[in-house]
Amino acid sequence: MYDLIVLGGGPAGYRAAERAGAEGMKTLVIEKRALGGVCLNEGCIPSKTLLNSAKIYDYANGYGEKYGVSTTGAKLDHAFVVNRKNKVVKTLVGGIGAAMKKYKVEVVYAEGKISGRTANGFSVEADGKAYETAKLLIATGSEALVPPIPGLREGLAAGHVLTNREILDLDHVPESLCVIGGGVIGLEMASYFCSAGSHIEIVEMMDKIAGPTDREISAMLQKHYEKKGIVFRLGAKVVEVKPGEVIYEKDGKRESVKAEKILCSIGRRAVTANIGLESIGVACERGAILTDDQMKTNVPGVFAAGDVNARIMLAHTAYREAEVAINTMLGRKDSMNYNEIPSVIYTNPEVASVGETLDSAKKKGIDAEERKIPMAYSGRFLAENEGGEGVCKAVVDKKSHKLLGVHMMGNPCSEIIVSAALMLNRELRLADLERLVFPHPTVGEVMREFIFD
Amino acid sequence: MYDLIVLGGGPAGYRAAERAGAEGMKTLVIEKRALGGVCLNEGCIPSKTLLNSAKIYDYANGYGEKYGVSTTGAKLDHAFVVNRKNKVVKTLVGGIGAAMKKYKVEVVYAEGKISGRTANGFSVEADGKAYETAKLLIATGSEALVPPIPGLREGLAAGHVLTNREILDLDHVPESLCVIGGGVIGLEMASYFCSAGSHIEIVEMMDKIAGPTDREISAMLQKHYEKKGIVFRLGAKVVEVKPGEVIYEKDGKRESVKAEKILCSIGRRAVTANIGLESIGVACERGAILTDDQMKTNVPGVFAAGDVNARIMLAHTAYREAEVAINTMLGRKDSMNYNEIPSVIYTNPEVASVGETLDSAKKKGIDAEERKIPMAYSGRFLAENEGGEGVCKAVVDKKSHKLLGVHMMGNPCSEIIVSAALMLNRELRLADLERLVFPHPTVGEVMREFIFD
Repeated sequence: MYDLIVLGGGPAGYRAAERAGAEGMKTLVIEKRALGGVCLNEGCIPSKTLLNSAKIYDYANGYGEKYGVSTTGAKLDHAFVVNRKNKVVKTLVGGIGAAMKKYKVEVVYAEGKISGRTANGFSVEADGKAYETAKLLIATGSEALVPPIPGLREGLAAGHVLTNREILDLDHVPESLCVIGGGVIGLEMASYFCSAGSHIEIVEMMDKIAGPTDREISAMLQKHYEKKGIVFRLGAKVVEVKPGEVIYEKDGKRESVKAEKILCSIGRRAVTANIGLESIGVACERGAILTDDQMKTNVPGVFAAGDVNARIMLAHTAYREAEVAINTMLGRKDSMNYNEIPSVIYTNPEVASVGETLDSAKKKGIDAEERKIPMAYSGRFLAENEGGEGVCKAVVDKKSHKLLGVHMMGNPCSEIIVSAALMLNRELRLADLERLVFPHPTVGEVMREFIFD
Repeated sequence: MYDLIVLGGGPAGYRAAERAGAEGMKTLVIEKRALGGVCLNEGCIPSKTLLNSAKIYDYANGYGEKYGVSTTGAKLDHAFVVNRKNKVVKTLVGGIGAAMKKYKVEVVYAEGKISGRTANGFSVEADGKAYETAKLLIATGSEALVPPIPGLREGLAAGHVLTNREILDLDHVPESLCVIGGGVIGLEMASYFCSAGSHIEIVEMMDKIAGPTDREISAMLQKHYEKKGIVFRLGAKVVEVKPGEVIYEKDGKRESVKAEKILCSIGRRAVTANIGLESIGVACERGAILTDDQMKTNVPGVFAAGDVNARIMLAHTAYREAEVAINTMLGRKDSMNYNEIPSVIYTNPEVASVGETLDSAKKKGIDAEERKIPMAYSGRFLAENEGGEGVCKAVVDKKSHKLLGVHMMGNPCSEIIVSAALMLNRELRLADLERLVFPHPTVGEVMREFIFD
């Protein structure tokens, strides 16, 4: 009998298990593949390892000349990069394993399936064994969405269509790559392979890239990559995939892109099938588990955290949801605030965002305005970004001057956005920024200019 | 008749003038050299431009191999780097000039000298003309401290001894460089010239480098640069400088370092001589103007901000002091909080710090403890720093668990530290960090581990 069984050892699952173990709950994690989940094994961390090498290579391969650094014979060893990525992943997966031991969390490597209710809780089967638990956390994550486009699944089986999983282990740099879906994953992979030498075309159904990102910033990012040679086909609906070819409809016309490899990065869907949800009656909506802001499902004692609830499919959301779930189990008051969750696109330059965009604020009926500061106001940004474009925008409540959102393009905004998240968390008004001292020279200090804009 | 005369157009001076101008004060800035002061013309910005090129060169010159990027030859064009630095400075100085125009601030390029009191304020002379003002802000900054060590001033005159000013315009990379003083400026210049190929020796009087930086982090940084080939001579008091030689005493013995060039980076002193302070009786202490936390001097109507008051000689302190001075002049409640001012050493890796160290807390009688997280806990740090060392420390009040200080080594902590400054500003306790969502994967998210440590 366990106090807690966690289905899935990704960011939500292992963080919940750590916290539960630390609080003395007898905890079992059931993971079918590897601790760390998609994020660590085939997502966030692997892609950042690749993108870091791409950045270094860009500088060595000509871009450094703007800064007085010239080279001969610059080479990116893709196989080395993939091998190094595997080492980094192995180290981090090992770290999670060690944390499980530290917090006395048991781990079973098998597919887990909820099999029903018991007198005191729930039963879960894995690898032919039955386990009983008082509480249950479902953290089975998500998988790449592969829609029923003719030829897509066949392409996946044949190996010329890839998802985030396969592309990270490609043994060579394809001559050309067609990316279906210009969201975060598509853009990050496009960024790496563009640097590595592939010809890239991105086919996107919407009229903009980068999903819900501020429209102006999306356009700036697109322009930046167009200069680097990436071709964007927007408003383009893929209707068929053939070996080496993606066929789409745009403005009523049928067109196509030829490419050695095709990345399918249309979106992700929660993994809720075949895990026994029906055996205890856990409610889903559009394929994802329904939860409240304390991660409770409709079944008392059963929680769901991470991508499986499809609220915000980001690893750091999963971490926080896991903490909220455990705190709630322990009777501590806690709940999610989805408005303060930052998001990052690790392209080069990076894009980072937290809170409302002007569009989303207006849709909610908030009387908001925008403050916009070019990143070039920062001396450090100028020093480190020759001719580099970048922007920092704040969305502010017109009346109270409360900060509602911050949106940036320019390195290293991934590391700067958390200070904006903290400002939102603390409900700062613009004037409060004056009392905050940013080190000079930094890129982040452009945010202080919002006060004076 | 002016509402405000600002003596000096550096960070304190120009920021004060902008704010005063924006508030409708008739404002004059008197600057003897160039807008932007030491920070922009021969300090923060120029050094960051050089250090950015050095970082790019390090990767191209072998370091990139750890990340799968190799070259057959890499060259750092020092003259190009210095030229680019000059362009960046010119752009930013131009920006300040434009801001002066925007806010209708007059600028006189001359040495300004206070000449006495008038019926309604003070008179200041510059370039043979007399100007009258109701209020006065002294922002004359600081200059490199050149102590009366035999041979030092002669060396400066002859050109083999340099200060921060001259070294930034060196037309070649010296074969060897002896740095007197292992503080921020000395370390940053050592870092650039070490990458550029100079043999570097650092002679430091204290038993540690990096001034008041956390002792463990100072030692880590020293070890890092020792591996890169820099020789450190600590507890070494320079007693004489000869052409190509620095003679010092250590443990009672006389030793010496031979070097093509010598950088004198012992410290900085406030510029208070020959500006007419005595004509109106402005009080100084140890060569710096005495101010309260609203930047008021002993003379009503006279304020002093920036390095000239020698409180914390950092550009961002100067900015904030300038704002506090103007707010105070305008009758708005404002004052400095020197505890929340971050500081950064832009070596590679960077070091950043805000608030109390364990040592400084103990000296104040605070019952504090330290939390220490290796940067390698961050997946992004691992992805971007092969075998890289780094650490993130929090100093916490034992009883209240309030955060008192944060200290880091590891890139890009210069941009991360502001979130720690904001935590101090908002008086966060460790547990409050749990509700703050850091994007994953970032380096900054290691701070969240403080909660669980």
